[in-house]
Amino acid sequence: MAGQYIYQFAQGDKTMKSLLGGKGANLAEMARIGLPVPPGFIITTEACNQYLSRGEGLWPELKAEILENLRLLEQQTGRSFGGREPLLMSVRSGAVISMPGMMDTILNLGLMPKTVKHLAQEMGERRFTLDCYRRFIQMFANVVLKVSHHLFENILTEARNRKKVRSDAELEQADLEQIVDGFLAVVRQETGAEFPNDPQEQLFLAVESVFKSWNTNRAVIYRQANRIPDNLGTAVNIQAMVFGNLGEDSGTGVAFTRNPSTGEPRLYGEYLVNAQGEDVVAGIRTPHPLIELKDDMPAIYKQFAEICMTLELHYREMQDIEFTIEKSKLYILQTRTGKRTTLAAIRIAVDMVKEGLISKTEALQRIEPNQLEQLLHWRIDPDAERIVIGRGLPASPGAASGKVVFDADKTQGMAQNGEKVLLVRPETTPDDIHGIIAAQGILTSRGGMTSHAAVVARGMGKPCVCGCEELKIDMTKGCFYVKDSLYPEGEVLSIDGSTGQIILGQAPLIEPHFTAEFHELLGWADEIRRLKVRANADNPEDARRAVEMGAQGIGLCRTEHMFMAAERVPVVQKMIIASTLEEREEALTKLLPMQQGDFKGIFKEMAGKPVTIRLLDPPLHEFLPNREELLLEVDRLRRERGDAEQLRNQEILLQKVQSLTEFNPMLGHRGCRLGLVYPEIYRMQIRAIFMAIFELLQEGMPADQLQPEIMIPLVGHREEMELMKQLVDTTAEEIFAEQEGQILYLVGTMIELPRACLVADQLAGAASFFSIGTNDLTQTTLGYSRDDSESKFLPFYLQKKILKVNPFAEIDREGVGRLIEIAIEKGRLANSSLKVGVCGEHGGDPASINFFHTVGLDYVSCSPYRLPIARLAAARATLSV
Amino acid sequence: MAGQYIYQFAQGDKTMKSLLGGKGANLAEMARIGLPVPPGFIITTEACNQYLSRGEGLWPELKAEILENLRLLEQQTGRSFGGREPLLMSVRSGAVISMPGMMDTILNLGLMPKTVKHLAQEMGERRFTLDCYRRFIQMFANVVLKVSHHLFENILTEARNRKKVRSDAELEQADLEQIVDGFLAVVRQETGAEFPNDPQEQLFLAVESVFKSWNTNRAVIYRQANRIPDNLGTAVNIQAMVFGNLGEDSGTGVAFTRNPSTGEPRLYGEYLVNAQGEDVVAGIRTPHPLIELKDDMPAIYKQFAEICMTLELHYREMQDIEFTIEKSKLYILQTRTGKRTTLAAIRIAVDMVKEGLISKTEALQRIEPNQLEQLLHWRIDPDAERIVIGRGLPASPGAASGKVVFDADKTQGMAQNGEKVLLVRPETTPDDIHGIIAAQGILTSRGGMTSHAAVVARGMGKPCVCGCEELKIDMTKGCFYVKDSLYPEGEVLSIDGSTGQIILGQAPLIEPHFTAEFHELLGWADEIRRLKVRANADNPEDARRAVEMGAQGIGLCRTEHMFMAAERVPVVQKMIIASTLEEREEALTKLLPMQQGDFKGIFKEMAGKPVTIRLLDPPLHEFLPNREELLLEVDRLRRERGDAEQLRNQEILLQKVQSLTEFNPMLGHRGCRLGLVYPEIYRMQIRAIFMAIFELLQEGMPADQLQPEIMIPLVGHREEMELMKQLVDTTAEEIFAEQEGQILYLVGTMIELPRACLVADQLAGAASFFSIGTNDLTQTTLGYSRDDSESKFLPFYLQKKILKVNPFAEIDREGVGRLIEIAIEKGRLANSSLKVGVCGEHGGDPASINFFHTVGLDYVSCSPYRLPIARLAAARATLSV
Repeated sequence: MAGQYIYQFAQGDKTMKSLLGGKGANLAEMARIGLPVPPGFIITTEACNQYLSRGEGLWPELKAEILENLRLLEQQTGRSFGGREPLLMSVRSGAVISMPGMMDTILNLGLMPKTVKHLAQEMGERRFTLDCYRRFIQMFANVVLKVSHHLFENILTEARNRKKVRSDAELEQADLEQIVDGFLAVVRQETGAEFPNDPQEQLFLAVESVFKSWNTNRAVIYRQANRIPDNLGTAVNIQAMVFGNLGEDSGTGVAFTRNPSTGEPRLYGEYLVNAQGEDVVAGIRTPHPLIELKDDMPAIYKQFAEICMTLELHYREMQDIEFTIEKSKLYILQTRTGKRTTLAAIRIAVDMVKEGLISKTEALQRIEPNQLEQLLHWRIDPDAERIVIGRGLPASPGAASGKVVFDADKTQGMAQNGEKVLLVRPETTPDDIHGIIAAQGILTSRGGMTSHAAVVARGMGKPCVCGCEELKIDMTKGCFYVKDSLYPEGEVLSIDGSTGQIILGQAPLIEPHFTAEFHELLGWADEIRRLKVRANADNPEDARRAVEMGAQGIGLCRTEHMFMAAERVPVVQKMIIASTLEEREEALTKLLPMQQGDFKGIFKEMAGKPVTIRLLDPPLHEFLPNREELLLEVDRLRRERGDAEQLRNQEILLQKVQSLTEFNPMLGHRGCRLGLVYPEIYRMQIRAIFMAIFELLQEGMPADQLQPEIMIPLVGHREEMELMKQLVDTTAEEIFAEQEGQILYLVGTMIELPRACLVADQLAGAASFFSIGTNDLTQTTLGYSRDDSESKFLPFYLQKKILKVNPFAEIDREGVGRLIEIAIEKGRLANSSLKVGVCGEHGGDPASINFFHTVGLDYVSCSPYRLPIARLAAARATLSV
Repeated sequence: MAGQYIYQFAQGDKTMKSLLGGKGANLAEMARIGLPVPPGFIITTEACNQYLSRGEGLWPELKAEILENLRLLEQQTGRSFGGREPLLMSVRSGAVISMPGMMDTILNLGLMPKTVKHLAQEMGERRFTLDCYRRFIQMFANVVLKVSHHLFENILTEARNRKKVRSDAELEQADLEQIVDGFLAVVRQETGAEFPNDPQEQLFLAVESVFKSWNTNRAVIYRQANRIPDNLGTAVNIQAMVFGNLGEDSGTGVAFTRNPSTGEPRLYGEYLVNAQGEDVVAGIRTPHPLIELKDDMPAIYKQFAEICMTLELHYREMQDIEFTIEKSKLYILQTRTGKRTTLAAIRIAVDMVKEGLISKTEALQRIEPNQLEQLLHWRIDPDAERIVIGRGLPASPGAASGKVVFDADKTQGMAQNGEKVLLVRPETTPDDIHGIIAAQGILTSRGGMTSHAAVVARGMGKPCVCGCEELKIDMTKGCFYVKDSLYPEGEVLSIDGSTGQIILGQAPLIEPHFTAEFHELLGWADEIRRLKVRANADNPEDARRAVEMGAQGIGLCRTEHMFMAAERVPVVQKMIIASTLEEREEALTKLLPMQQGDFKGIFKEMAGKPVTIRLLDPPLHEFLPNREELLLEVDRLRRERGDAEQLRNQEILLQKVQSLTEFNPMLGHRGCRLGLVYPEIYRMQIRAIFMAIFELLQEGMPADQLQPEIMIPLVGHREEMELMKQLVDTTAEEIFAEQEGQILYLVGTMIELPRACLVADQLAGAASFFSIGTNDLTQTTLGYSRDDSESKFLPFYLQKKILKVNPFAEIDREGVGRLIEIAIEKGRLANSSLKVGVCGEHGGDPASINFFHTVGLDYVSCSPYRLPIARLAAARATLSV
């Protein structure tokens, strides 16, 4: 029970945050290094915890300690609490971790009729003193005595009406006398007692009130939401009041030691003469740029600028500083780390390294990798107003605006005429691919994060919002509904693919921004990271972008995306519908040169870097038209008894679509299961890879610049891996014989099934590398269909905290992560030279990257746009261990 | 190279199978115990392996050893090889593991012009001798000299045509002389050399030929298919010929020591006078029942019956014995374990225990659990001819016949008129339930082993073949196609739900058969097994059947099946379509008494035994109509502009169906994910369980007879388990307060997701039991959709041996099994009293049960029909360790 519960500012420092709270520790630190801080003291968080656990109010020892410190404060200020030259105080909460607005503050404590009189005399300003008094009564009554706010507001409103003025500032001294009486009467009526006139009693009540505010509902909920422990408690900061509104030689302001928007290393801020902090907030008067203080009060400005520099140097961090000037005397009320944009954060971190203020690793630790996101895509100006009319799944990041069009052909036509178009569809199919290419962005009412629209858009780096179930499209009437509102086709919408928002009208967009500092910071990240970083890229353009963004290879080239190009879809469909091997091989022969061309372009871009190419993975029906639309069409054709041949063709197509339809395509006939049943498809792809390489060799590219890695998807059994490896090897041998040459290549597998992890040792014999497909591994391990769960139960699970994070965004360490550990351990035991990477979307998630670093992966692979995030996260992972 | 390569019969015994082959060891054994076996010797499997690895023909030492044994044989028989009173021999292969028909046999070896003459003189029967000679030439030429069989057949056919006779037996001596000449000419022409006339050369060539036959293509393939090692080699049995066709005092026959159809303990067999074994096989003459031999040759019969008894006692197993009588002398040519029906196997095993011949555990080891299958269901008489017109998935075992009907109402109507009907549909929905109940069996063209039809049929123990893609139904024309044949509705078909066969017409059916011996044997199984055996049962009738079949509890009561009863479906659909909580609760209130009634009936049947009830598991759309049919109907209603209200209702229904439709329902919104989002549904079910119990208590049932175990499906996270446990507990407390009573109950979970296994320790805190759902765990661990894979790639995988067994039939030990081990280990570590069972269909599979025993499960649960299999398998598991 005994012990020190109170610290004078001089006794504390910035390291004592857990005892003194964030604000208190910084006040103490500033006092310690000699800055002009209004004197005061801090009641510790320990005292708060004691108070809460005892549940018996303030105990005598604590009260005595408060009073003792009060005496010291009186000595320091030369004023007396409740006496002549009355000492007024602020009583503020101060949690260890900032909980803005969650807990209580009381200003001007110490006022009562007698001190009001003395202070008015001292100041020669009774109106000012009365204004302080009525504010104090209202604040104290509300916070401590729980008297409802609106009772006081009623009285103020009445007074303004009576005087026919609009603001409280226009009320005169006499009005304020009346208001004070009215306020005191309200307190009497509501509490059945007089407003406490004893300053000591005021103080004790205020301290208790701050303690109790730790456990208010809103504070508890805030802590739950922000995962702040409940046992930290709050400190109480008690400080002498200073006033910036005592005339033209007084003022108040806020400053950042560097520009929080751009990071420019220059003092930035604003101030108001003859004003208190709340006036700045209220927005009645427009504050002046800080630089003008240089002219208004040159000495003060010089002193303040020096203090700012001192604080920044001291904290080795950009500071956000509040100050008040009371009758030409400068006081610093608060300093804290300044919030800033990502752009500014990067500039500041890089500048500070150059200024010798911080080390490179400190710079890296100051930028949260996910912060970079906002620099990497077009985005909607966060300061602009937006009319959000609906919301879907954030399927592909970035923002876009354009006229709504329901049809891919029309989209292409309008785009060719220079119009900006959003392609809006129930869902997309390969038939829409030219529309997707031409559109600014894609919006669908059905389908999840792995729907056709989402996958294709992400591959193209094009914004996409999908699965917006509130959106209903009426093609026949040429209009669409969002919730209950009707809009015509052609309406301009904006979509935000990072949040899923659908916005009415043309939203102002901000373009991606890569500064020199951005590149410099990432360079430092590259110096220290152990994880290599590759990109998921399916075509030469993506590959080029990936290299620009720092990719050290391609970790996942999805060959099926090459099948989705508009001119290829008919050939692909022919291949699928083929009823004989000959027909199929004929179609494959047509596809071969197309794939070969793709591979050639990619290998060229990736010279000297490994390229992992995954053989065909998705179920074949994904390349065919939508089953239900086809069903309705066949039904119509049958009824209308028109073109018999067209009917027959569509019937054959429908039959094929139906025979390929699966109840659970995610667990169906895909991956190497296709390669085993239709080896001719894989053989064509393997041939296309090697032929592309021979072409490049003939064009003079050195052999060591070509590093193909052929990846077999969805392997679960040793036999699958061995047979597929054999297929690659024999096909390679055939081509080598034809071409009279040799090429070095690796064969490996995706690890995306729980079984694959459990028998990784059996797979590692035939596989030279594992690429962990965390998307599918998450789906199977958790039994979540990503397409379904993200629009169905997952939001509910996240909202109810059944899941702490979305397992498709951040790796599920206990389940999926455990399987990954097993796979790595077993795989490396069987094959010590096994290369292990990850190519699911978790490869671009910082928290997941940290895990991948810890378990010893060799590389992560992510979309080109997320490479900077991955590079930074990989670097930070080496620092966090 | 040195060593003994040949054993005289007297030197071997039955334990030497690996050296002497199966046949040789038994011949030696019989000789050893003094039975009349034609004398001979055995060249060992070691000699064969030597021969094959040397690749240089017979080596001198081996030849010398053969000749030495030949001398002994001449002494034993008093005949000479190639001399007067010529010794003829049979040369037969004899593998360690029987490979019937796979390798070579040569009879009558030793014949050539000289010995033919001598033998004819000796026998006084030149025609008989010539017949032996031509057979020998043909056999030797074909087997040893690789002369094509048909060249000899041509000569025989020609001779028959010339003589205008139908069988070779009708050919006369002169014809045979001519035929022998013709045969020798063929050999000369085909091989360019004379047929070898030196008996020694014949013998050496024959022995080499038997050795080589180990590596013929067909033998290699047979070994692969039956997983017989390639390095065993074959022995060669060389034995003096005996002849049953030397007159009325000769004969041949086959006998079983007990009846192989019924197990009746009486000699059973047949014989022919004046005949060789091949005459019996050829079927030209009808053999006589063995009992008649008693009259024909009383002494021989007596001697033979005694030998049979000796052999059975000696081998302690029912024997299948071949014998020949040569001029009133009995020879035993072969004895082996007799094949028998399951019915006979059980009777024999039980009888032998009673006779003191074998122990109970031996009896159990003699019955393969899966053999019982044929006793447990109606089946198609295996001896009857069947015209198989198609094949689907064997979805629910048993056989049924009836008229094909496409419509559930019509099925019900016809069944009420006493007609036997097969319900044949593209797929079934809950709307068809009355048709399923009324039908003899179900046949569908779409859907897999977990389709609605399959699940419902298995639950009812009704035969079902589903996913028969060759079947096309044309409702409008009232006909159906199988492959390219058209059949009218009303055609009689039979289906075999155990094989998936679809058979034209009314197949003869055999009813299930439970004998006293069957129950006695299972009683012995119950004495020694450690694993408890429970049943999957969803209604009182199934529960009663389960108890009859020996269930020690219900391991899985699927509450959704209760939702599928015809009169409940509309209420269930109302519950699902409900747009407000109130509407939903109204429907649930109607369902409550129905479920309560079900539970009451089940608890009554299961008095004193635990009942595990799984709360609602499948996605809700499974209770709604088929989406595509609804789509077409709405399209039609819109076009026809008829009944506006009907259109509106169907539109609302379609909208709901669409909003509930999932891309991968197996991984979708089901299991406890439903219980968390719609707790009111689970609350109703929990209430129904407890209210049923209170009803029974009030009716006087003792409390300890009621052992409810409430099971939460599809749990993957600790939070899910804890919240669901909480829901059960709070609901229980509510009811206990209302009813002023207490009931003991357990709450546990299905373990059916890989994640659940990996975090089993976290779940075992709130769970009192785990029930491993191996069906879903297999789907997720392997990434196989059961509905899809069984009709798509799985047959291919099995055929190509990528998978050795169907993982949905036999547990995948390396993947799924490993996860189960992890779950048990982690679960028991966290909760030492944790009860762990299995309730997937693997719970009825003997190989899987063996695994479950090994890893220490407490119980398995399977369909009532498979309980006898499970009981026997669980007993055998204790013996196999």
